[in-house]
Amino acid sequence: MSRPEPTRIVSKLPDAIPFVAPEAYEREMGTKFLARLGANESVFGPSPNAIQAMTEAVRNPQWYGDPLSFELKSALVTKHNLTNDHFVVGPGIDGLFTHIASAYFAPGDRVVTTLGSYPTFNYFVDAVGAELVQVPYRNLKVDLESLAKEAKQCQAKAVYLANPDNPSGTFHDGNAIQHFIDQVPDETLIILDEAYLDFLEDYEVADLRLIRLRTFSKLYGMAGARVAYAFGEPETLQPLNRIRPHFEVNSIAQAGALASLQDHDFKTKIQEKNRLAKYDLAILLEKYGLYPLASSTNFVLGDAGSKARAEAIVTNLRQERVFIRKPGLAPLDQYIRVSVGTEEDYAVLAKALKQVNL
Amino acid sequence: MSRPEPTRIVSKLPDAIPFVAPEAYEREMGTKFLARLGANESVFGPSPNAIQAMTEAVRNPQWYGDPLSFELKSALVTKHNLTNDHFVVGPGIDGLFTHIASAYFAPGDRVVTTLGSYPTFNYFVDAVGAELVQVPYRNLKVDLESLAKEAKQCQAKAVYLANPDNPSGTFHDGNAIQHFIDQVPDETLIILDEAYLDFLEDYEVADLRLIRLRTFSKLYGMAGARVAYAFGEPETLQPLNRIRPHFEVNSIAQAGALASLQDHDFKTKIQEKNRLAKYDLAILLEKYGLYPLASSTNFVLGDAGSKARAEAIVTNLRQERVFIRKPGLAPLDQYIRVSVGTEEDYAVLAKALKQVNL
Repeated sequence: MSRPEPTRIVSKLPDAIPFVAPEAYEREMGTKFLARLGANESVFGPSPNAIQAMTEAVRNPQWYGDPLSFELKSALVTKHNLTNDHFVVGPGIDGLFTHIASAYFAPGDRVVTTLGSYPTFNYFVDAVGAELVQVPYRNLKVDLESLAKEAKQCQAKAVYLANPDNPSGTFHDGNAIQHFIDQVPDETLIILDEAYLDFLEDYEVADLRLIRLRTFSKLYGMAGARVAYAFGEPETLQPLNRIRPHFEVNSIAQAGALASLQDHDFKTKIQEKNRLAKYDLAILLEKYGLYPLASSTNFVLGDAGSKARAEAIVTNLRQERVFIRKPGLAPLDQYIRVSVGTEEDYAVLAKALKQVNL
Repeated sequence: MSRPEPTRIVSKLPDAIPFVAPEAYEREMGTKFLARLGANESVFGPSPNAIQAMTEAVRNPQWYGDPLSFELKSALVTKHNLTNDHFVVGPGIDGLFTHIASAYFAPGDRVVTTLGSYPTFNYFVDAVGAELVQVPYRNLKVDLESLAKEAKQCQAKAVYLANPDNPSGTFHDGNAIQHFIDQVPDETLIILDEAYLDFLEDYEVADLRLIRLRTFSKLYGMAGARVAYAFGEPETLQPLNRIRPHFEVNSIAQAGALASLQDHDFKTKIQEKNRLAKYDLAILLEKYGLYPLASSTNFVLGDAGSKARAEAIVTNLRQERVFIRKPGLAPLDQYIRVSVGTEEDYAVLAKALKQVNL
């Protein structure tokens, strides 16, 4: 008997999911991780304001959340000094990528990105049958000049960059980003993923072609709640509103995100905690021969010297019930990636690294 | 200056959103609704177990939710006597529609549905450029025979039906549905939206081509939390896992959904409350000359006799701070649709209907 076939595009996609979740390893191991330092989640947790707002919100989950996220957007309007129409709220940056891809990318379109940078983005490009054009890192940083050049050369539909970048942790300042934007062809959409920018001072860049993305998953400690936003010129964002599920953003997450923004000291407080804890992490990694790269995020790359050693460390740490990840592609594949943790996490990590002895 | 263009498909889509949210009306009115009976939300709220589980979950939103929803799926495995691979959990049925459309529908594909049935489904078909083929209701019910016939005639990629149906509230039993399934061509995907089936006894139907959809938004009172699931043969569901954002389901919602299922009396209790409150609603509507249709859901259609009168009632009730909706298309466009409410809601509704006097 014949059966319904997926689209030609989806038929060709691999079954593999982008990456294995820590819970999947835990089920395999039959025990929990002692330190969960693989997904750049915030060990500092959310604002107490957010917990309070969400504790109230879960008492009445029977009402759909506001599909226009008006209250949350009003706080964003103030924060960024823009208008309501400059924002689209979505269920995480990945969810917003789905909508950007559906709104802008068609089969045959070329999308330029950095080889090895946030591979999940590529997953959404593949899903709509667009073609990835990948430019290597340069000195372990996103190569802005080559990205812009390639965008021009291949008449790219879009160019993607994460700033700060994941998994390298490196950063370009606002001037460099604005200069990059100015080099990109007029017809090319610029997708600027700023998931980790909250850990630094904000910068201003502007362009008609720009979609910037922010999340409450990282500094704001709400990865499980699924709330993020895109901002840019209303005309550039408007196509997303033609295709997104309008009631997709959780009401509890909206309440938590709003309350986080209203906790005005929170960002500075976490920036400071993160800075100190990242410093301790770098020292720890160096002590075990894993030379740390300077990082503008809440994770640190440690140089294991070779891909084989880096892979062995990740696997062996897992056996010691420590969850970390590593970049898959050169030149970053000889590094391990460890998220900022608590003192307890570091004690567990140090003990495990000693045990692993690689 | 030229700028990035959305895809050809998305360029042609209207700017309009599927429907206006009650919050948007409230902002316009400058005041809150006294009765919110327009979105078939559950006035009975969620299980106390769910509130407790979510109250705990919001204390630690910093961790991503399990992308495989293993614990929730394990409860579903028990409930439906299937395997883990028979399920995909998603952020609401609308969210799952996005994935079904992306996985299965390409431009030129024909998708058969009932004219006037859950119009949001059409929105997701339009978003990927597939062609809608719409079959009229027959005696105010989904016309199973004509749906199957049309699916054969137009070599449909998929056929959609909601059972119980929204907005008619009518229902076909399991035998009728199985008979329908048997008439549909082998190559046609069958999308069976059972958002409201929890209000009735479950039935068993089986087919390789079938994707059934359930939600925690209706009987389980968790519309704001955004959690639903698709189930069917693993091979039929598997394409969804190639394109969905794997971390899209809120951890808080997953905890709440699991706890709801573990509250074994909850479903029967709400079914009974809903049955009684629906009876009261039917009596109320009849009293005001809005002859009620029998409903298998948590809402009731009341016959206003004409489209113009139905529209006037909806608009005028809004001025009395009562939020209801109405179907847009014939033969249901002469009805108003009112969700089951509390006694307080009904007191407000009765007073407003008297005031409106249409």
